[in-house]
Amino acid sequence: MTERLAYLGPEGTFTEQAAITLSGDASGRAYLIPLESVTAAVAALRMKDVDAAVVPLENSVEGGVTLTQDELIHGDEVRIFAETYVAVRFDLLVRPGTPAADIHTIGSHPHGHAQVREYLGLRFPAADAVVTSSTAAAAAAVRAGELDAAVAAPVAADHYGLQAVVRNIGLDSDALTRFVKLRRPAPPAPPTGNDRTSLVISVPNRPGTLLEVLEEIARRGINLTRLESRPTRETMGDYLFGIDADGHLAEPAMADTVAALHRRGALHRFLGSYPRGQGAAVARPDYAAAEAYIAAEEYLGRLREENR
Amino acid sequence: MTERLAYLGPEGTFTEQAAITLSGDASGRAYLIPLESVTAAVAALRMKDVDAAVVPLENSVEGGVTLTQDELIHGDEVRIFAETYVAVRFDLLVRPGTPAADIHTIGSHPHGHAQVREYLGLRFPAADAVVTSSTAAAAAAVRAGELDAAVAAPVAADHYGLQAVVRNIGLDSDALTRFVKLRRPAPPAPPTGNDRTSLVISVPNRPGTLLEVLEEIARRGINLTRLESRPTRETMGDYLFGIDADGHLAEPAMADTVAALHRRGALHRFLGSYPRGQGAAVARPDYAAAEAYIAAEEYLGRLREENR
Amino acid sequence: MTERLAYLGPEGTFTEQAAITLSGDASGRAYLIPLESVTAAVAALRMKDVDAAVVPLENSVEGGVTLTQDELIHGDEVRIFAETYVAVRFDLLVRPGTPAADIHTIGSHPHGHAQVREYLGLRFPAADAVVTSSTAAAAAAVRAGELDAAVAAPVAADHYGLQAVVRNIGLDSDALTRFVKLRRPAPPAPPTGNDRTSLVISVPNRPGTLLEVLEEIARRGINLTRLESRPTRETMGDYLFGIDADGHLAEPAMADTVAALHRRGALHRFLGSYPRGQGAAVARPDYAAAEAYIAAEEYLGRLREENR
Amino acid sequence: MTERLAYLGPEGTFTEQAAITLSGDASGRAYLIPLESVTAAVAALRMKDVDAAVVPLENSVEGGVTLTQDELIHGDEVRIFAETYVAVRFDLLVRPGTPAADIHTIGSHPHGHAQVREYLGLRFPAADAVVTSSTAAAAAAVRAGELDAAVAAPVAADHYGLQAVVRNIGLDSDALTRFVKLRRPAPPAPPTGNDRTSLVISVPNRPGTLLEVLEEIARRGINLTRLESRPTRETMGDYLFGIDADGHLAEPAMADTVAALHRRGALHRFLGSYPRGQGAAVARPDYAAAEAYIAAEEYLGRLREENR
Repeated sequence: MTERLAYLGPEGTFTEQAAITLSGDASGRAYLIPLESVTAAVAALRMKDVDAAVVPLENSVEGGVTLTQDELIHGDEVRIFAETYVAVRFDLLVRPGTPAADIHTIGSHPHGHAQVREYLGLRFPAADAVVTSSTAAAAAAVRAGELDAAVAAPVAADHYGLQAVVRNIGLDSDALTRFVKLRRPAPPAPPTGNDRTSLVISVPNRPGTLLEVLEEIARRGINLTRLESRPTRETMGDYLFGIDADGHLAEPAMADTVAALHRRGALHRFLGSYPRGQGAAVARPDYAAAEAYIAAEEYLGRLREENR
Repeated sequence: MTERLAYLGPEGTFTEQAAITLSGDASGRAYLIPLESVTAAVAALRMKDVDAAVVPLENSVEGGVTLTQDELIHGDEVRIFAETYVAVRFDLLVRPGTPAADIHTIGSHPHGHAQVREYLGLRFPAADAVVTSSTAAAAAAVRAGELDAAVAAPVAADHYGLQAVVRNIGLDSDALTRFVKLRRPAPPAPPTGNDRTSLVISVPNRPGTLLEVLEEIARRGINLTRLESRPTRETMGDYLFGIDADGHLAEPAMADTVAALHRRGALHRFLGSYPRGQGAAVARPDYAAAEAYIAAEEYLGRLREENR
Repeated sequence: MTERLAYLGPEGTFTEQAAITLSGDASGRAYLIPLESVTAAVAALRMKDVDAAVVPLENSVEGGVTLTQDELIHGDEVRIFAETYVAVRFDLLVRPGTPAADIHTIGSHPHGHAQVREYLGLRFPAADAVVTSSTAAAAAAVRAGELDAAVAAPVAADHYGLQAVVRNIGLDSDALTRFVKLRRPAPPAPPTGNDRTSLVISVPNRPGTLLEVLEEIARRGINLTRLESRPTRETMGDYLFGIDADGHLAEPAMADTVAALHRRGALHRFLGSYPRGQGAAVARPDYAAAEAYIAAEEYLGRLREENR
Repeated sequence: MTERLAYLGPEGTFTEQAAITLSGDASGRAYLIPLESVTAAVAALRMKDVDAAVVPLENSVEGGVTLTQDELIHGDEVRIFAETYVAVRFDLLVRPGTPAADIHTIGSHPHGHAQVREYLGLRFPAADAVVTSSTAAAAAAVRAGELDAAVAAPVAADHYGLQAVVRNIGLDSDALTRFVKLRRPAPPAPPTGNDRTSLVISVPNRPGTLLEVLEEIARRGINLTRLESRPTRETMGDYLFGIDADGHLAEPAMADTVAALHRRGALHRFLGSYPRGQGAAVARPDYAAAEAYIAAEEYLGRLREENR
């Protein structure tokens, strides 16, 4: 059956590129549906209008995409089933023939502005930075003559009939955005040996509690690869933490960690176990290996039954 | 001498209200200068065009204001000297006489949109959310006929000749924004007994390191009130953490903690010690009291000199 | 069937008193067998000559009884099934009619000497302290005229026809000795709600390892009531640690802790779960309750099967 | 001036050998005084009858010498100024010409019995083990015809005109005893680069407190080489811990650790910093180096004075 997959549109952005990668179908049979916001894409998933949604989760320059993180934290539960990383490069696009001296207004999404802030400050110090709802929207506004230039994905030049006057601008030549594919809750795919598990933890606002929760994780040999704070929206100073860790729920060390967080009331949500999109897991200590768990269970069984 | 104080403008926003509070001068002698962005306000401070800058640091709904946090983390060092909390309430403003049925476009700053997202989704499901650079800019666009409505601070109604059709919308009736007053580096004001210290810590991306750094803080009896992650902008997965803690650099337990973080290479920046704008510090354990530090120093002195 | 119970003899010592208490049989049907040493009592148990052995484990003045602890650590495994505390008071016993001025030699077991050391130093500064293999042996030597006085249990006066010239001497009026009843390995008795579990842990001689092992215990809400070091007998500086903790192997938090120590290779031996002989367990945190373990298991099950 | 040095006698034991080593004077000018007990040797030091005392502190087979440890913990403070390790080998000594079949009683100090327990159990299963106050006392009793054989230091054969029938018996061919040289409190000698510091820590009997104290030490990069429990003599279950750690009080990381323990009320006693008698310190992490402490102090100074 053809999978219906919503993504943060419009067409011609890095998210479309990620959605194609994560559609898992080179034949193009997946049905990709651009929606106007992360919220809309996740809502379509929750309401079963689509089977999956692809949204950006974090960016190596700007950090967490807070809208996505808040969608994962609040509302009906959804799960991450896959991830991919897309190299983010921005071009400065103008209508063909526009001279640099005529660039007085430059549009982009806040993430685009963030990445090129320093460059534009030096090169176009007098130009106004105009916030648009997406980098593609900025390109459309340039096409319509409402803006002089757009900081946008290279693919947008073709889409909107624009021309790049500067290529690959930005703070970091290796800026990356991480995209995730969401589905409604279902059992995770089997472990691949190089997986990641995402959780949201909530930490009561008592001194030392975050420390104890992190010890629960670290002492089970689980390596954290991300720890990001989000406010609870209830009380200033209360946080939820989005964490990513090496490993899969089907592995005993991870299941043991999830159970320990649950016992402490510190597990706000399990967000999924899925194959890593890049990089390899840190080697786990021997005491966290599946073999060690099995041997310990056998030992406990012997203690309970022993008769010598 | 009259203090020159830049703030994130335009006039008519919550930041202006915070700037007045933090100008420390009811007579109005402080010279308040609205600038178009957090970046511009901090740049004016760094270039000595102004004596101080007031910018938003975090919001109880949206979390950290990432632009401000990044300004504190990168570029020339600045220090926090004061903070204040402002209750954030938004009104939905229109040109006088506009019927609700004619509201098709609603502008606001992303933080405004975030706070009223659910309400507008229910009440105006068909309206387009338009991102503007500030809530006041949305009000100006309504005035100019470019948008139908703005989610903005109540004070903006007067400023732009608009009318509130809904008052005090938003997820949270007690949403707060925390603003800080920045200056160039100088010794902190003396402790008041209810102070806060802000630091930026950097944690090498090795398993367990964040845990060890948090233990350095917790074991010295220092209570964290905020821990927020920001990407380093260098490698995906490397984070800096903005932390706030009860206490003042002039207190031995805090100085000891700052020194310990420095020794570990984990102190990216000291951001200042300043009076708490709200709430009271958690009582510190006896072993972290100044008296305990003094007694321990005396004991060490005796060990080094003892002659019995 | 009548239980055959070996104890550290001779008759007339505190150990006999403990053996009677722990024989669990007021009718006297248990068959009590005094042996000449802890080693002999434990060896008789291992060789199935007896069903149980009662030996002293620790003393509130002298600390651990190292011979017993070493028997528990080395050799074939045995288990603790019960414990009792006996108040230790020593009398100074002489042959009837001996004047204090004629006391030149005073015999006792090293533990007896330890407890009365200060008192005898003041009262009989010129007397020689003679080490005997038990306090009863000292009394026998007094009876035989080989010593002038014995520091021994009050019950020894009758046994050996001696007279107390000082009663209840010793550093501590509330000195206690803890005795344990050992059996060959068998499943522990069911929990009573106020139980103790004894373990021997081995900690590789790497910096920080003891800390990590203690965290494994503490983070599971398990309260330690004793931590005593014993050399491994292999390398100077390598230790085994005898620990007692509140709780029973049948409780999930304790089983989880035992399994965690096993996975780390830190569990040298499980010594048993048995009712506390005195005092009450510290209340366990909610996250360590059996209910929390059950709920976490159910949650994990749901994650693995979920279908929404 | 000739140093007066008391040691645990009599002559002809391993302690005399250690005392000669630690007298620091190959010419023999130190005046060595054998006393009858550890208590007597330490008392002579406290009363200024001697300048120093040499006593055994721990043994690789039997563990801590509890009498010595209790003398260090209780009574007027004394300090360790030096240590040495002596290989412990025991011979079985008899009167010349005694056949093995005539050995029915074998005397030794409890430590001697402990080390040869297994051997004698196999070789002389029917012989009685008799406890004497020292191995030399056992040799003297053999000489006097009161015992058939003695487990004693080889040097005792000459001293008492005996003959070895078995040489170098014992569990461990590399059994070692560690001896320390005590003086009254005085400033420690300067660091050598390979030093050890001994402390006695007291841990309030609350859950988790030992863990926190050990973290205070570990987090400062201080490596423990010994951790031994001793009862407080007050309440069953309250312990003091004797610890040895790599490093010297003159090094900032160690001074910082001592101060931290003092602040927590966990430092019962500082016992001294002195050169290691064997082995080398584990390399300390960079953050615990003196340079790191100096740099952190300078940084703090700059923060307090900064003016940019």
